[in-house]
Amino acid sequence: MMKAPFHVYSVLLLALAVSLTSCSQQNATTVLEGNAAELTYVAPGEYDEFYAFMSGGYSGQITAYGLPSGRLLKEIPVFSVYPENGYGFSEESKPMFNTSYGFVPWDDSHHIELSQTDGEFDGRWLFVNGNNTPRIARVDLTTFETVEILEIPDVAGLHCAPFITENSEYLVSGTRFSVPIPQADVPITSFKENFKGLINYVAVDQESGEMSLAFQIEMPGFNYDLARNGKGKSHGWSFLTTYNSEQAHTLLEVNASQKDKDLLAIIDWKKAEEYFKAGRGTERTTSYYHNQLDESSGIAASTEMTTTTILDPAELPDMVYFIPVPKSPHGCDIDPTGEYIVGNGKLSADMSIYSFDKLMATIEAKDFDGDINGIPILNYESGLHGILKKPGLGPLHTEFDGKGNAYTTFFISSEVVKWDVEKLEILDRQSTFYSPGHLTIPGGETKKPFGKYLVAMNKITKDRYLPTGPELAHSAQLFDITGDKMKLILDFPTKGEPHYAQAIPASMIQPNSKKFYAIEENTHPYASLGEGQAKVTREGNQVHVYMTAIRSHLAPDNIEGIQMGDEVYFHLTNLEQDWDVPHGFAVQGANNAELLVMPGQTKTLKWEPFRPGVFAFYCTDFCSALHQEMSGYVRVSPKGSDVELVWGLNDENKSAQTSR
Amino acid sequence: MMKAPFHVYSVLLLALAVSLTSCSQQNATTVLEGNAAELTYVAPGEYDEFYAFMSGGYSGQITAYGLPSGRLLKEIPVFSVYPENGYGFSEESKPMFNTSYGFVPWDDSHHIELSQTDGEFDGRWLFVNGNNTPRIARVDLTTFETVEILEIPDVAGLHCAPFITENSEYLVSGTRFSVPIPQADVPITSFKENFKGLINYVAVDQESGEMSLAFQIEMPGFNYDLARNGKGKSHGWSFLTTYNSEQAHTLLEVNASQKDKDLLAIIDWKKAEEYFKAGRGTERTTSYYHNQLDESSGIAASTEMTTTTILDPAELPDMVYFIPVPKSPHGCDIDPTGEYIVGNGKLSADMSIYSFDKLMATIEAKDFDGDINGIPILNYESGLHGILKKPGLGPLHTEFDGKGNAYTTFFISSEVVKWDVEKLEILDRQSTFYSPGHLTIPGGETKKPFGKYLVAMNKITKDRYLPTGPELAHSAQLFDITGDKMKLILDFPTKGEPHYAQAIPASMIQPNSKKFYAIEENTHPYASLGEGQAKVTREGNQVHVYMTAIRSHLAPDNIEGIQMGDEVYFHLTNLEQDWDVPHGFAVQGANNAELLVMPGQTKTLKWEPFRPGVFAFYCTDFCSALHQEMSGYVRVSPKGSDVELVWGLNDENKSAQTSR
Repeated sequence: MMKAPFHVYSVLLLALAVSLTSCSQQNATTVLEGNAAELTYVAPGEYDEFYAFMSGGYSGQITAYGLPSGRLLKEIPVFSVYPENGYGFSEESKPMFNTSYGFVPWDDSHHIELSQTDGEFDGRWLFVNGNNTPRIARVDLTTFETVEILEIPDVAGLHCAPFITENSEYLVSGTRFSVPIPQADVPITSFKENFKGLINYVAVDQESGEMSLAFQIEMPGFNYDLARNGKGKSHGWSFLTTYNSEQAHTLLEVNASQKDKDLLAIIDWKKAEEYFKAGRGTERTTSYYHNQLDESSGIAASTEMTTTTILDPAELPDMVYFIPVPKSPHGCDIDPTGEYIVGNGKLSADMSIYSFDKLMATIEAKDFDGDINGIPILNYESGLHGILKKPGLGPLHTEFDGKGNAYTTFFISSEVVKWDVEKLEILDRQSTFYSPGHLTIPGGETKKPFGKYLVAMNKITKDRYLPTGPELAHSAQLFDITGDKMKLILDFPTKGEPHYAQAIPASMIQPNSKKFYAIEENTHPYASLGEGQAKVTREGNQVHVYMTAIRSHLAPDNIEGIQMGDEVYFHLTNLEQDWDVPHGFAVQGANNAELLVMPGQTKTLKWEPFRPGVFAFYCTDFCSALHQEMSGYVRVSPKGSDVELVWGLNDENKSAQTSR
Repeated sequence: MMKAPFHVYSVLLLALAVSLTSCSQQNATTVLEGNAAELTYVAPGEYDEFYAFMSGGYSGQITAYGLPSGRLLKEIPVFSVYPENGYGFSEESKPMFNTSYGFVPWDDSHHIELSQTDGEFDGRWLFVNGNNTPRIARVDLTTFETVEILEIPDVAGLHCAPFITENSEYLVSGTRFSVPIPQADVPITSFKENFKGLINYVAVDQESGEMSLAFQIEMPGFNYDLARNGKGKSHGWSFLTTYNSEQAHTLLEVNASQKDKDLLAIIDWKKAEEYFKAGRGTERTTSYYHNQLDESSGIAASTEMTTTTILDPAELPDMVYFIPVPKSPHGCDIDPTGEYIVGNGKLSADMSIYSFDKLMATIEAKDFDGDINGIPILNYESGLHGILKKPGLGPLHTEFDGKGNAYTTFFISSEVVKWDVEKLEILDRQSTFYSPGHLTIPGGETKKPFGKYLVAMNKITKDRYLPTGPELAHSAQLFDITGDKMKLILDFPTKGEPHYAQAIPASMIQPNSKKFYAIEENTHPYASLGEGQAKVTREGNQVHVYMTAIRSHLAPDNIEGIQMGDEVYFHLTNLEQDWDVPHGFAVQGANNAELLVMPGQTKTLKWEPFRPGVFAFYCTDFCSALHQEMSGYVRVSPKGSDVELVWGLNDENKSAQTSR
C-alpha cells in the first residue's frame, strides 16, 4: 500500500483548522432580523407545526422535536438501554437487544427514514440504522415505540442505511466498513484480497411494516457512506456514495484521501429483485437476530435467522454500475423530480450533479470507462448534468424545497448554501454555528417537500449556549426558508448527536397517536386484568407477583414468604384507562431499573433479594395527590424459612399458590 | 389496625377526579398577554440568564435547562447508567454504581440542592438524592459531572433528602419508608413495634465538597417526606414533614389519610452534633458504599464503610421535637428571613405557617402536648404564626421572592398561588396545566431569592404538546413574577419527571466552567500522553490497548493477535487540548456502550471478542471533516493461535509487550 507523505496530511489538517477558526469568529446575532421571536414562539397550549425526528447519533436513540419551537417532545429509546422507562431492563424488552453477538445494550443511530407511499411520507413508521453492531429498527408512529430490530449479518458499520424506496418496498443499507465476508481470521493487510462490502436490501411488509432481509449484493471493499433511492422517473434505482475506493486499511485520514474521485454506486434494484426471485443468488449459512414486539402482549421475542442470499454483480449483469464522484463524498441526494442526483464530495471544491436521464442513456449506450470486479464504470462526463462550482468547503448533504432549489450543508466553511438545481447557480449562503453535518427540510428528500423550515445539525457548539463543562450539547439551527434568503431564527441544543433528521407535518401523525392500551386487548400471560386477579404464585424458586396499579395503590402491597435465592418477577398491570396516567414501579436494591407502565400495559421487573428483611416498593410516577402513599413492602426470609407465601392489600391476606 | 370505611376512600377519589376534570377544561392561552415571545426568546448566539437544574425523577439523572428559553442544555447522568456517553459502562465509571446491594444501575432522583455559603448559593456543587436504593450524589459544577455517590445505610426510600444547611455543613436526609433498622425478617404487620425512620446527617467538607455520613437520628416509624434547614435566625435547626403518622403498613392511600394532622419534626442539629462529638451516639456495624471520582485520573473508586453512629432522641434530650401539621404534608418551606416555616398539608383545606420565634418560645416554655417515644410534641397553637385559609387544593411546595411573598403549588386545583407571608393574604392565583408538584424560583429557598421567574413542574401534560403516543413528557411552565400578577409565558416539555429544581444566575457558574482536561494533569495509569506512548500489552488473557485519538485518527488503528477468550481493554486518551473536541469510541459487537472522551481524558472500554475475524472500531463523535475516516480494525484469532500480537498505524507495525 502506498503511504501518504506526511506533509500532505499536515497541510490538510492546517486547512481544516484555519477554516474552523475563521468561521468561529463570526457573530450569529448580526444575521437576525425582525420577528424571529414570534416566528418560533409556540404559546402555552398551542402546538408545533412539524415533528422533527432526529437520530441521536451516539445516544443510539431518536428524539422527537417540535418545530418551530425546538422543544424536545420525547426521546424514543431504540438501540440503547433506557433506565428512564425500563427499556432493556424489563423482561418484556430485553429480547430487543439480542444479536448474534449476544445482548448489545448500545448503538450509534444515524439515519432516520419515515415510511413513504408514492414517494411521499405516509406517517406510519420510522426506520433507523444501528451503525456499530449492524441493525435496523422500526418505530411505530402511533405509539412512538420501537417495535422491531433486525440485525444485518456478516457486515460491519451499517452506516449507509436504511434508505427507503418510494413505496417503502426496501430499505437499502450499505456497509461503511468492509470486512472479510463471511468473517475470517485473516491479516488486516490482506484487505484488498479479502475484504468486501455488502449492500443489503431489507424488505418492508406493506401492511404490517415488518422487515425481512431480502438479499445482499456483494460489492468491492470500499466504504459505502450514504444513499438515496430514485423517485418518480428514477424509481427502481439506488444511488450510494463510496469513499476509500483506495481500499486503505490504516490511517484512512490520509490513505483514503488520495484519489481525486471516488465512486457512486448505481443499482437497478428491480433487476436485483428479479435475480433474487429467480433464484440466481447464492444462499449462505449465517446467524442474525430478528427481534419483534408483540403489540398486544407488549412482549418482545427474538428469532435467530440462519440463511442469507448473496447476489454477485460479477455474475449477474445489468444490476450494478459505478460512476466517478468527486473526492470522499458524503451525501447522495435526489431532487423531488427524480432527475437530479447530487454527489456531495466532502473534500472537493466542486459538486457533481448527475442527470438520471443521462445516466440511463450512458448505461444504454454502454458508454463505460472500464470496470471494477465486473461492475461497469460509467463515463463521468456522460452522466453529468453539470458542476456546481465552488459552492463552499466540505459539502455533506443536500435537500430540496420543491421549488427547484437545493440546500447543502458545508462542514468546513460552516454554512448552508441555497442553489438552483437546474441552473446550478448559488442563490444564498448563511453561516451556521458551527460545522453542520446533515440538514433537514420537512419532506425535503421526498417527491413533495413541505419547505418552510430548514434545520442544520451542527457538530460543534462551543460558545453557543451557557457552558456545561467539557461536554456540550450539539446544536440545531432553524432557518426560515420561505423568502429568497434563508433566515436563522432559532438555535436549540439537542440530545446525543443530532446526526440526521426528517420532519413531517404534525397533521400526518397526531390524529393516529395512541392514547392508551385497551385493557381488554392485553394478552400478556402475566397480566392481571382487574384487581381481583392480583395474586402471587411460586414455581420452585421463581415467584410471580401479579400486581395491579390504579390511583393510588398497588395490589398486593404486602408480600411475605419470599426467600433468599428466589427470583421474583413483579408483573405490573396498569389498570388505568385514560391518557397520561402511567404508573411506575421500583423496589429497593434492585440490580435493575424501574418499570414505567402505560395504561392497559403489563411490564415485568426481575428482582433477586440481596438480604433478609423488609423492603419497600413504590410507584415512581407522580400519578395523583396520593402518589406518595402508593407503596408497599416485601418481606424476605432466609432460604428454607417456614414463613408462608402470603400476599394482601389492607390486611386481607391470601395464601399464594405454590408449586415446588 | 383500623381499616378505613371504603366510602371515605371513594369520596376522596371522586373529589380528586372532579378537580382534575374541571381544571383540564380551562384554556391556557386566554391568560397570555403581550410580549411573552420576546420575554422567553434567547436569540442565536445569546445566553440564558439562569441555569435551572431539574432532578429527573424516575430518570435518575439531572437536567440543566436555560431560563427563560426552556432549552435543555445538558442531561447530567447521576444514578442511572447512560449509554450515550458510557457512564456506567466504562471501567472508570462502573464503581459509581456500587452499593451494599451490588451494582445498582438506576435510581429515582428527587431533590436538588445547590451548595450554599451563608444561606446563599455559591455555585460550587449540586447534591441530589437517590430515592429507591438510598444514596446521595454530588455533581461538580465546574465539570457538570457526578463526582461522588454516598449510600445511606439501613434505610428505605431516601425521599426527604438531601436538604442543605446554610453553610453546606450538612445534608439532612430523612427516610420515606420506615423499615426494621437494622433489617430483620419480621412480619410486615409488626410495623408499629419494629419499623423505624432515620434522619441522616451527611457532613460536607467545606473545601472539597466530600460527603461523609456523620450520624443518624432514630425516629418513630413515620414517613419523612420533605425538609428544610433554618437560615439566619433559625440556622442550626432542621424541619421535616412526616406523613403516615398513623403508621399504616398497607393501603396507605386510605390508612395513612386518617388523622386530621400529622407531625412536623424539628431538630436542633447543633445539639445533635454536640451529642455526636461527645460520643453519646451508639456505634453500629453496617455496610454502605462510598464512591468517589478521582478528578485527575478520571477513575471512580468504591470504599465499603462498616460503621454508623445512631443518636436516640429518647435518650438524648432537647434534640428533637414534633409539632402537629395539617394532614399529609408534602413541602416544609422557610422564608428568606428564617422566621416563617410553611407546612404544606396536601390533604388539608388550609396551610399552617409557623413562627420560628414562637417555636423557640414554645420549646423554652416546655409548652408540650405529650410526647412520642420521648420526643416532645409542641403545642400546635403556640408555635403558629397563623393559618392561610382556603388557598387551594393540595398544596405541595412553597418558595419565596425575597419581597415578602410566597408562591405555592396546588396539585389538585392545578394552580400556583401567590400570598403574603406576613399578612397571610392571597395576592394572585394562576392556573397550571396540569397538577404541579414542585416549583422553583431562582434562589427561592435561600436567604437571597433572585426572583424574576417561577417554574411550575407539572405532572400531567395530556394535550399540552403534540402527542407522542401513550408516553408523554412532563412539563414545566415558566411564569414571569416581576409584576403584581404572575404571568405564564412559556410551556416546555422536560426529560424524565422534572421532580424538583433549583435555579441559579448563570454568572455564578459560567466563569468557572471547565473547558477541557489538561493532558499533563492526567494521572490515569493507562493514559497515553502522546501518540508515541500508544501501545498494546498482554498480561495473560488481558490485553491492554493504550490508544490515542486526535483529529482524525486513532493510534493504533490496526491490531492483530487478539484471541478468543481474551479480555480486551481499550484505554482511549483524547489528546486534543481545545474546547468541544470530544472523541468517541465503539467496537463492533461489544456487549457494552460507547466511550465519549473529553479532551485530556482517558476512558476504558472492555471488549470480549465474540468470534474470530476482523472487526471495525471507530470514533463515534463527528469530530472533523475526516471523522468518517477515523476508524480501525482489530483481528481476532482462535484461542491458542500463533498470530503475533502486533499493532500499528499506517503499516508501521510494532510487536506488543507480552507477559503470559
